[in-house]
Amino acid sequence: MRSRVDSIRSFRVMDVLERALAREAAGHSVIHLEIGEPDFATPDEVIAAGISALRADHTRYVQALGIPALREAIAASYAPADLDPERVAVAPGSSGALQLVMGLLLREGDEVLLADPGYPCNANFVRLYGGVPRLLPSGPDSGYQLTAQRVADAWGPKTRVVMVATPANPTGALIAPEELEAIADTVAARGGYLIVDEIYQGLVYDRAPLSMLASRDEVFVVNSFSKYHGMTGWRIGWLVMPHQYREAITRLAQNLFISTSTPAQFAALRALGPDLRVEFERRRKVFHQRRDFLVPALRGLGFGVPLLPAGAFYVYADVSGLGYTGEQLAHELLEEADVAITPGADFGSYRAAEHVRFSYAASLEALSEAVARMGRFFAGPAH
Amino acid sequence: MRSRVDSIRSFRVMDVLERALAREAAGHSVIHLEIGEPDFATPDEVIAAGISALRADHTRYVQALGIPALREAIAASYAPADLDPERVAVAPGSSGALQLVMGLLLREGDEVLLADPGYPCNANFVRLYGGVPRLLPSGPDSGYQLTAQRVADAWGPKTRVVMVATPANPTGALIAPEELEAIADTVAARGGYLIVDEIYQGLVYDRAPLSMLASRDEVFVVNSFSKYHGMTGWRIGWLVMPHQYREAITRLAQNLFISTSTPAQFAALRALGPDLRVEFERRRKVFHQRRDFLVPALRGLGFGVPLLPAGAFYVYADVSGLGYTGEQLAHELLEEADVAITPGADFGSYRAAEHVRFSYAASLEALSEAVARMGRFFAGPAH
Repeated sequence: MRSRVDSIRSFRVMDVLERALAREAAGHSVIHLEIGEPDFATPDEVIAAGISALRADHTRYVQALGIPALREAIAASYAPADLDPERVAVAPGSSGALQLVMGLLLREGDEVLLADPGYPCNANFVRLYGGVPRLLPSGPDSGYQLTAQRVADAWGPKTRVVMVATPANPTGALIAPEELEAIADTVAARGGYLIVDEIYQGLVYDRAPLSMLASRDEVFVVNSFSKYHGMTGWRIGWLVMPHQYREAITRLAQNLFISTSTPAQFAALRALGPDLRVEFERRRKVFHQRRDFLVPALRGLGFGVPLLPAGAFYVYADVSGLGYTGEQLAHELLEEADVAITPGADFGSYRAAEHVRFSYAASLEALSEAVARMGRFFAGPAH
Repeated sequence: MRSRVDSIRSFRVMDVLERALAREAAGHSVIHLEIGEPDFATPDEVIAAGISALRADHTRYVQALGIPALREAIAASYAPADLDPERVAVAPGSSGALQLVMGLLLREGDEVLLADPGYPCNANFVRLYGGVPRLLPSGPDSGYQLTAQRVADAWGPKTRVVMVATPANPTGALIAPEELEAIADTVAARGGYLIVDEIYQGLVYDRAPLSMLASRDEVFVVNSFSKYHGMTGWRIGWLVMPHQYREAITRLAQNLFISTSTPAQFAALRALGPDLRVEFERRRKVFHQRRDFLVPALRGLGFGVPLLPAGAFYVYADVSGLGYTGEQLAHELLEEADVAITPGADFGSYRAAEHVRFSYAASLEALSEAVARMGRFFAGPAH
């Protein structure tokens, strides 16, 4: 029998990153479009709140599910939904929130339905907690997402959990609210559990952000301060759970984490201050502009982007029309054009070799230069 | 089949803490001897380093195993042992380090030998990762610890891992270096793995601190900045692993954590500055004084403390001579004397009901007042 870690692959993007750093050390100016991290820094006000917390010696263990003020502020952020703060568990990043929910729900051999392509850690968390990820091929025909019909068709005797992400990484795809409701109904009718990853929930460009919690209590929602609030390295996120799991999740959090970084909790509390909304919305609009620049530019270069990504800061692009595999192209673009991107293989198996992911967590200027470099690359003698 | 979380109990000390807070809210002055957290704050220099890190915008994701400077400083802290920084994995607390090593080693059904009494999360991590903790009753006759002979006797076909803690929580007991070597030999001869929890390694009172890494490379060592360096709420610790697991541990860390709190890493780096050793040693001496006050005082009150605890900041005391169970006594001492302690039941099953744990993470003055209150309690009309 294999250890769980044997089923977990390393991320190809790490090789890209390593080679990119080596090229930079050799004097090249690399444009980084491989990174899953906003290029915006933590806002000054949030930094200042972190500093104040340190000065006030907020450096001790706190409650396993988070300081009450932060749980209350997170709950209030779902208004007009009336969310009980007791349903909020602060955790070390959405990574920690995922550990809580997987540790709660999974028994050895339980099957979890997920879309392929998807964020690779999700399937790995399932494996680490003894579950079996079942990755359902999801292309443009279903908006790169699961549908209620496909969940119903795939449901088997071992299926216990369905996990969706909206917006999703790497596709930026949303699930339409009515489809998500239908998925929730399908799962509930079979006695299963639905986990909704809303990490990129604040970063949507064609409609107002909408949480599953606006309409449903009986779901698990994972979120984070990393992406929308620009707090990746602080490692702070949260889980919203149905009320009846509070005690079990408390036990898990006590054991897994003791508690979440105390200074980070005070900083995150500041990040939810209504006055900072202006800055975060400004950033969202910048991402929106970048998307509206990058997607047509990529299409113009011959990449296949059948659906406009509705959220997050990624474009999942089909390279099959360009005569490359995703890994080849990622390799050659870095070596010949100093543009770093992520091979699709990091996000699953379904047509993954034919895709790459572009992150637009880079300035319009950098994106524009990357497009120019790629234009020269494709026009070059080898092509 | 039950979910893993069903096998994890909540900590009784949480009830103690809750009732203690309620009494304080009602105007009582409670002496807290139930807490597993040093009463010393993070040193000012370390706070300042955290503030500088925030000002410098060190708030992004960093390397999965930690920033190189911190890994190097941790490796150097084992001098004169020549430890390769590549063997160090920074993690979110020793909790995170334990997740890494359990995720690496355990296959479903693997048995892990542990001493009872012990830190309850250790057994719970085993359960969460699909293993089966086998708790070996460990009383004063074996210094509250496993011995090589007992490991050999208990070894079965499913045994894969042995985990020891030295000094241990709740007993403060060390394992003698030659016994620990013998345990390592016993484990190695059977093709198993040894995990040594050295979280309290810096806090020993009757000899110099000694790491297992001084003599062995083929062990997993868990440590933390929480206790010796006074950084509990920052959530930062580390794992030292044999060289060949570096790649697998990297994959696990990428998936479980992405990375560990960036500002906490810069602060921890400062905590390892040689100039701060003076302050940490001063604190160690204060703990030493408290131990030397508390243990005889408890014995004088009728508690059984057969062995002088050699490290950490706990006294595991036998209450059977006092006519109480540990839970009864913890309850009554809080309600009648406003002294909060932890029932032994939090630390295992073996004679746990007959024990309580005192933490001396409280001033000599507070300890002295607690002893006086307990003296009045035991002399009172009900007794």
